[in-house]
Amino acid sequence: MTSRPGEDSLIARFFAPLAAPGGLGLKDDAACLSPTPGHDLVLTTDALVETVHFLPGDPPGSVARKALGVNVSDLAAKGADPAGFLLSLALPEDWTEAWLTEFARGLGEAAREFSCPLLGGDTVKARGALTLSVTAIGEVPAGRMVQRATAKAGHAICVTGTIGDGALGLLVRRSPAWVENLSSDQRAFLTDRYLNPQPRYRLAAALRAYASAAMDVSDGLAGDLAKMLRASGVSGVVGADRVPLSAAARKSVEAQPDLIDRVLTGGDDYEILCTVPENKLDSFAKEADSVGIALSVIGHVVPGHETPVFRMKDFERRYDVGSFSHF
Amino acid sequence: MTSRPGEDSLIARFFAPLAAPGGLGLKDDAACLSPTPGHDLVLTTDALVETVHFLPGDPPGSVARKALGVNVSDLAAKGADPAGFLLSLALPEDWTEAWLTEFARGLGEAAREFSCPLLGGDTVKARGALTLSVTAIGEVPAGRMVQRATAKAGHAICVTGTIGDGALGLLVRRSPAWVENLSSDQRAFLTDRYLNPQPRYRLAAALRAYASAAMDVSDGLAGDLAKMLRASGVSGVVGADRVPLSAAARKSVEAQPDLIDRVLTGGDDYEILCTVPENKLDSFAKEADSVGIALSVIGHVVPGHETPVFRMKDFERRYDVGSFSHF
Repeated sequence: MTSRPGEDSLIARFFAPLAAPGGLGLKDDAACLSPTPGHDLVLTTDALVETVHFLPGDPPGSVARKALGVNVSDLAAKGADPAGFLLSLALPEDWTEAWLTEFARGLGEAAREFSCPLLGGDTVKARGALTLSVTAIGEVPAGRMVQRATAKAGHAICVTGTIGDGALGLLVRRSPAWVENLSSDQRAFLTDRYLNPQPRYRLAAALRAYASAAMDVSDGLAGDLAKMLRASGVSGVVGADRVPLSAAARKSVEAQPDLIDRVLTGGDDYEILCTVPENKLDSFAKEADSVGIALSVIGHVVPGHETPVFRMKDFERRYDVGSFSHF
Repeated sequence: MTSRPGEDSLIARFFAPLAAPGGLGLKDDAACLSPTPGHDLVLTTDALVETVHFLPGDPPGSVARKALGVNVSDLAAKGADPAGFLLSLALPEDWTEAWLTEFARGLGEAAREFSCPLLGGDTVKARGALTLSVTAIGEVPAGRMVQRATAKAGHAICVTGTIGDGALGLLVRRSPAWVENLSSDQRAFLTDRYLNPQPRYRLAAALRAYASAAMDVSDGLAGDLAKMLRASGVSGVVGADRVPLSAAARKSVEAQPDLIDRVLTGGDDYEILCTVPENKLDSFAKEADSVGIALSVIGHVVPGHETPVFRMKDFERRYDVGSFSHF
């Protein structure tokens, strides 16, 4: 295996072509970034471990996209526009040039799509599974980061896109019985939603303008909503039938009704959950629409400290454990 | 093992107490940092893997200090003052609260010493060895980051502290024959230099004022010097007897002369290597002295593209492979 490139030529070949000007061609010890005057920096880091956050055999380009995407999703939820990222990559002994070529290609595509260029990184030998850590840096006008702990009673609870697809997409790959009810397009859709999250970076400006609080949905809608409302010292009421489901997710739940719990708690959504004052809802919805992001009002914030309630047709449920933890 | 805390309580208990105000108590999805007006950001990331960068059984506080220290060392070499860091921690199945308590204590001590507070992080399950990745953020006055590729022919080559201690400290732990010639204090000194690197963050301002190029010595003096000069399109001449050695390193080389190669190429120094115009040397030395950092002039930059030469008493050597790579 000694014919594979060493760290320096690996960086030069696979990663330097992706570097932003501030990355200095990845030839220095550090990157240099000139922040926009009058702006704050928003910083987030998320790690992905093979078999924990993605599966062996997942397309390398999807692994790269997910590693960057989950971080850009955090930036978006804070109302921040991406400025760049650093990648820390621990490669297992059996890495191949073919794998790394596809990984770098996917990383470059995602970085261009999200306007979040590579600034620097580190490549080391793993002792165990492939492990990646991305730190993403974004910018907001000074004092305008959208926080998590600032939801207010009376405000509407909104969510982007559709919920549960990623969690179902993970299940689809294990071929459970209910998958027989889906068309092949629907199966492919759910699998793609698991493999290739779509961070809602286009919503950042609208969130800054209209949201009282926001976070991204990465560990399940029920658990993440509970976290946001608990941090804000309030509670919430959600109409479970107002939670937006894709046609594929709806079909899955019809085939096996208890999947609704998985949909609401399963994680891997990378949608935005936020609270918005009622009198700003129309403007917010209009701006979301103008950037092509579907928005659903699913409930409202209420005073109190209980875990938020999800009202179904026949019953209601509080997901006390709720949140899926990757830890 | 289910009695151990989950991710949220783990963060609240071990890491939230270390968080800077911008870290928002580690309760949000991201940190918020207000950059100093008129300054650039300097960003660097370095990963550490157990058995590759540190050894099983190393004190947890030292592992934490090293993870942060190697990054602060990079910032220092760029002339940047630390602003904060993010930590990505992949913990193996068998982590214990005792280990994490000591790790967090060491991390907090190092963060205070380096004035580099915790801004955020992520904790995940490892599949294999403990793996840490730190991203450190620093600041320099706009346009003043000290680069690596800007060394000039005629300038002096300087290095801080002493070289080779960390590499010898790693060897000491394997108890080779030459260790018999060291006092127990000397052995402890070398081991400590391996375990607890001392990043030269106090030199940042002097480097900005006087250095034409700089990098930190992490992969061995010979290899890192070759990298810096190659990137600058120049070569160098070093007097090997002018490379600063600690008493313990000197004693080790006396006992086994070929250890000089290990000293010059071994890595884990975390000293600063820089080039300085001759007419600024006195001022630079004075400022280094005023912050308690020893400085040695070891040679000078010359035109050409050869690997830099190390002149010994009886012979000279070019370390063509030179640099130790952690990859």
